[in-house]
Amino acid sequence: MKSQGDSFSNQNVSSDSRPLFTGKNVTAMDRWLATKLMDIVGNPPIGIKLWNDQQLIAPANCVATMHFHDRGALYKLLTNPDLHFGDLYSSARITVDGELVPFLETVYRAMDDVSKTGFASKLVNAWQKRPRPNSMSGSLDNIHHHYDLGNEFYEMWLDDEAMQYTCAYYPTPEATLEEAQVAKLHHVARKLQLKPGETVIEAGCGWGGLARFFAKHYGVKMRSYNISKEQLAYARDKAKQEGLDSQIEFIEDDYRNATGECDVFVSVGMLEHVGADHYRDLGQVVDRVLKPNGRGLIHSIGRNKPKLMNAWIEKRIFPGAYPPSLKEMMDIFEPNDLSVLDVENIRLHYARTLEHWLERYEENTDKISQHFDENFVRAWRLYLCGSIAAFTTGELQLFQIVFSRAQTNDVPWTRSHVYEQEGQS
Amino acid sequence: MKSQGDSFSNQNVSSDSRPLFTGKNVTAMDRWLATKLMDIVGNPPIGIKLWNDQQLIAPANCVATMHFHDRGALYKLLTNPDLHFGDLYSSARITVDGELVPFLETVYRAMDDVSKTGFASKLVNAWQKRPRPNSMSGSLDNIHHHYDLGNEFYEMWLDDEAMQYTCAYYPTPEATLEEAQVAKLHHVARKLQLKPGETVIEAGCGWGGLARFFAKHYGVKMRSYNISKEQLAYARDKAKQEGLDSQIEFIEDDYRNATGECDVFVSVGMLEHVGADHYRDLGQVVDRVLKPNGRGLIHSIGRNKPKLMNAWIEKRIFPGAYPPSLKEMMDIFEPNDLSVLDVENIRLHYARTLEHWLERYEENTDKISQHFDENFVRAWRLYLCGSIAAFTTGELQLFQIVFSRAQTNDVPWTRSHVYEQEGQS
Repeated sequence: MKSQGDSFSNQNVSSDSRPLFTGKNVTAMDRWLATKLMDIVGNPPIGIKLWNDQQLIAPANCVATMHFHDRGALYKLLTNPDLHFGDLYSSARITVDGELVPFLETVYRAMDDVSKTGFASKLVNAWQKRPRPNSMSGSLDNIHHHYDLGNEFYEMWLDDEAMQYTCAYYPTPEATLEEAQVAKLHHVARKLQLKPGETVIEAGCGWGGLARFFAKHYGVKMRSYNISKEQLAYARDKAKQEGLDSQIEFIEDDYRNATGECDVFVSVGMLEHVGADHYRDLGQVVDRVLKPNGRGLIHSIGRNKPKLMNAWIEKRIFPGAYPPSLKEMMDIFEPNDLSVLDVENIRLHYARTLEHWLERYEENTDKISQHFDENFVRAWRLYLCGSIAAFTTGELQLFQIVFSRAQTNDVPWTRSHVYEQEGQS
Repeated sequence: MKSQGDSFSNQNVSSDSRPLFTGKNVTAMDRWLATKLMDIVGNPPIGIKLWNDQQLIAPANCVATMHFHDRGALYKLLTNPDLHFGDLYSSARITVDGELVPFLETVYRAMDDVSKTGFASKLVNAWQKRPRPNSMSGSLDNIHHHYDLGNEFYEMWLDDEAMQYTCAYYPTPEATLEEAQVAKLHHVARKLQLKPGETVIEAGCGWGGLARFFAKHYGVKMRSYNISKEQLAYARDKAKQEGLDSQIEFIEDDYRNATGECDVFVSVGMLEHVGADHYRDLGQVVDRVLKPNGRGLIHSIGRNKPKLMNAWIEKRIFPGAYPPSLKEMMDIFEPNDLSVLDVENIRLHYARTLEHWLERYEENTDKISQHFDENFVRAWRLYLCGSIAAFTTGELQLFQIVFSRAQTNDVPWTRSHVYEQEGQS
């Protein structure tokens, strides 16, 4: 082992006899632990550079190199990579030489393989922690954490058309972000076969983009729920400016308190915040408000199989978030006499959406830096890049589920209507 | 109670002192039990006539009347309606005055309501029995029971194009059975994006219609499994006649023994026979045979929520059959690293398919009577009518699920290709 280490850094040879945890030198123990780290995450083709700035590991087909800038960073990462990589990257105690997205894709693929067997699997599972409870007050804290960063922050990198902070739909991969977000809203509206004058209850309305779009283009009446104050203030202002305020009721309340009855229930990008323990509640809300011949659509990030959210994203970016598997999502429908009509998985569209967001984010980092520190800028970069990697490697899915009550036969005969009008928007 | 009964039949007044279970007379106890039966099944708007040929119960908006021709039939039905109605109807100890499908729809709807609460719910659940085990030898017995009745029997009422004993796809409700079965095969092929020269493994091939169609119209190589001797003999003959035998390998074996590797895995109408305990096995078979960029489709009858098959159909028509809920079906995919791309529910298309089958069945009852007794003819009529009612009332669903391996990005960008070509077949 010594000779392998020596080839990288002569200055380390003598250091082995010095205390282990001090100094800028790299010890045999440091090198051994770096190798061990690679074993644990499944030996992806990535390089390792330690704080002496020398390449310790340089595999064939090396995709990118992870650069540790101090010993503490290496030791901290080892205790829980899933949780600590994000913080260490954000504070630049770890940097990545090379492209961040391919680096993360490579690590995700290797960890996915390793999670299937043996000791490392147990370790990886032990790193996982439970999401924060989404009781009504818990949800309020969790949503405030993420969505009340300031509307200007999101305006810098979301689309100009409808300010959609959810997966777009690209009729072709070449569509622009604005085209794709508009296409997504039409795609959802067509799946729901919206008709003028119908009433729609929306659970989780973001900045109100979908509500305004449906009111304007489909002539429906919206009742839209959200618990983020900043988003709602923005949503109400915009609706007033566009003369749509008589058609839209924005309600600052939890979706579980939804009242009235509706022809259509829609929820785009909220289920991620609901938590697996509350799917039956959500189904009961739908059952309470939906008219006998009503229909609904739930659009959510999901998984191929149950797995907790990445610990760092859950802690720093999206408290309480949990992307469910389809099996888990069925707890919304099966106990509440709802019938699933259609499920579409468009995960690669989310990767494309995130690429567009990342492009704009990078164009605006100067402006963002005026309001947030460098740690924040790096954290959000990592979050966007990590999300791209999660969708391209199949770690995450994006499901749109159309449903109706079990007893109605007033359902679309085929799905061709969704595609006949595509591109005519 | 006596006066109520008296108004129907004077001859019964004196009979109350005679032994309860003999004679053609109708007793107060008989009348009370008939009323009780209606309570248990949720008081649907159907009439009751007993063996004295007088109308005992005649509700407003009466859909049809159930006519008991002997006391034993009433008492037997009371012990387990789910199981015994079929046998009693088949042997004409119960007949239905009026249309059979609306009668069954009405009863299904009422029983669905009643199954949600209270004592009757427990009773209805107690009637349910477990399906027969689908071990390899169990499957052989179960499949023989249903599919080896003679190919001529099925030829009399299935489509002439591809002899499909599964749900058709009607681009419009006006399509003929032949048009709809052809459209179904194209619909499946388009969802799978079949390309010439690709290899397809088919689990459960029936009379080989799908295999011949895919080989002929899409130029693929089929390896098709079935354990029904009669079906396979028919399938091989037909393939030879059409000069397709070099493209299709029909294998008399259980799907669990499938070997080789394939670009596409397809199973249309077999999952109903697999049994919920074996979904993981099926997923493992797929995982074993599917190439890295392969994709698959499973087409099956299902449920909105878990529930056993109707006991009579399970006993007399489809031994071992179990239509799973989507949640249950996910056991095929989630433990085996498969990714669900698309789910379509076309239950109303199965109601239409069954209506077409029933029409032809009724046109051929004279011929069928030459080979089978009247009991059989009535049993199959009930099975077809009961199935129509199960799909129109939402008791049963029809799911088509498209999937790929979790790691591949070689998946369709949108689903528009399925609809662009519709009608061009």
